[in-house]
Amino acid sequence: MRVLRSPAAVQRWATHQRESGHTIGLVPTMGALHEGHLSLVRAARHACNQVVATIFVNPTQFGPTEDFARYPRTTRRALALLRHEECDVVFMPAGDQMYPAGFQTYVVTGDLATDLEGRDRPTHFRGVTTICLKLFTICKPHRAYFGQKDYQQALVVRRMVADLNLDLVVKICPTVRESDGLAASSRNRHLGPADRERALAISRVLFEQARALRNGLYTARAAERRGRQALSKAAGLRLDYFSVRQAHSLARPGPSDRDLVLLAAARVGRTRLIDNVRVRLNSGR
Amino acid sequence: MRVLRSPAAVQRWATHQRESGHTIGLVPTMGALHEGHLSLVRAARHACNQVVATIFVNPTQFGPTEDFARYPRTTRRALALLRHEECDVVFMPAGDQMYPAGFQTYVVTGDLATDLEGRDRPTHFRGVTTICLKLFTICKPHRAYFGQKDYQQALVVRRMVADLNLDLVVKICPTVRESDGLAASSRNRHLGPADRERALAISRVLFEQARALRNGLYTARAAERRGRQALSKAAGLRLDYFSVRQAHSLARPGPSDRDLVLLAAARVGRTRLIDNVRVRLNSGR
Repeated sequence: MRVLRSPAAVQRWATHQRESGHTIGLVPTMGALHEGHLSLVRAARHACNQVVATIFVNPTQFGPTEDFARYPRTTRRALALLRHEECDVVFMPAGDQMYPAGFQTYVVTGDLATDLEGRDRPTHFRGVTTICLKLFTICKPHRAYFGQKDYQQALVVRRMVADLNLDLVVKICPTVRESDGLAASSRNRHLGPADRERALAISRVLFEQARALRNGLYTARAAERRGRQALSKAAGLRLDYFSVRQAHSLARPGPSDRDLVLLAAARVGRTRLIDNVRVRLNSGR
Repeated sequence: MRVLRSPAAVQRWATHQRESGHTIGLVPTMGALHEGHLSLVRAARHACNQVVATIFVNPTQFGPTEDFARYPRTTRRALALLRHEECDVVFMPAGDQMYPAGFQTYVVTGDLATDLEGRDRPTHFRGVTTICLKLFTICKPHRAYFGQKDYQQALVVRRMVADLNLDLVVKICPTVRESDGLAASSRNRHLGPADRERALAISRVLFEQARALRNGLYTARAAERRGRQALSKAAGLRLDYFSVRQAHSLARPGPSDRDLVLLAAARVGRTRLIDNVRVRLNSGR
């Protein structure tokens, strides 16, 4: 496994791979790897000749009051895990290589990026789309792998890829969960035992409401109201949002929409967690 | 010469050229070709195995009160000229192929894009950078050719290419002038004989002040003041700006700056014209 630090070196490597007819799979990470990331690497390994993972804690996707400084940096462990998954290349740039002096170009997405996470974190998705575009132009992947856990992020990146005619496929892989149902996240390591217990309410309520929707017990709007009520009352948890949306546009669903996603964000102590569950309703109802 | 209308077809062509080891040169145009464009095609033809020109009147770079509807559309003539210059491929998409329903992703550049042209035309460069990025990802050029006449545009595109790690070189070719000094522009065809005579003041004053600067007659600030005065008094001409800037950053120059550009924009009747002249001062003064 090669560890490269310069964008130009990775670009040369990627150009060479493409000229040799190889398929490149990209797994972008911020380094604090968990089972979710490793499942993406395995999916890339399965489908592509060459797998490149990136480790970069991207400052532009953190807001001024967010946890950039506190974000876990565990590079040595990440490299060992990526080597174990048989990554070919790890791209690990320094901050000033990605954002040199004079940097001033951003990729911005509209409606998809301004609601939900975008409402709570107004510059977040601008940072995500900008770093993803940069990683795409540097690593030249045929396929890029994202986890469903960051569902809105995956949709925003897909939208960017379509709108800017980027020649790659965005693969969205299932959320990996710990045995108690908590979605795998780098931020879980900040949770002490009591907070972790409290955090379980998020996935529990998402699954409850998803099940009720699937069973036709009530409408999207009612599921949203009930989920919101349940999480607002949950002890030690501050709800940011609980919402039921159309799965592809994140628009509010009408009575005939069948492909839905339930999304939630909440704070437990100083740690902000997000999760979501997809629901496809039978069209026969 | 092949004329392709679908982004996917051009992308397949470009991928194939790259895999075959060919060098792709791109000349983006809005179709109303003049000698300036043809000089870009010749430069590309000289340096690259494969030349692709694009013809697309890009709606997103026109403001709501600007001349999008009035912009000259002379496709048959443009194709004949490109064939004559031995272009390999012309990419000529329809508007809804470039901006399909739901399109919402833009590339935005900071300081470089907000001054001068950006002050008069606040969404102009967002449209330019977005369409250029799309044309770059579709046509996959090794080199893209722009005219110095649109000097700020060329700098903004170069900045985008650097900031987003795009794997291509932006070539800026000299402004082509008509025999009377007027910079070649698609908009010149809107000028009647009287307006055309009036328009000549723009290049004349730019060259006068450039010469005075080169001869050390006065400072950048004085040249700017004199040029502005001369064009403000010119008959039948409404000055938008006349400015002397650092050539690479477009920042206002200090006394030690040697690499300068004089830029002007003015309206003659309903037609808005821009022009610029680079000046490199001797460092011995």
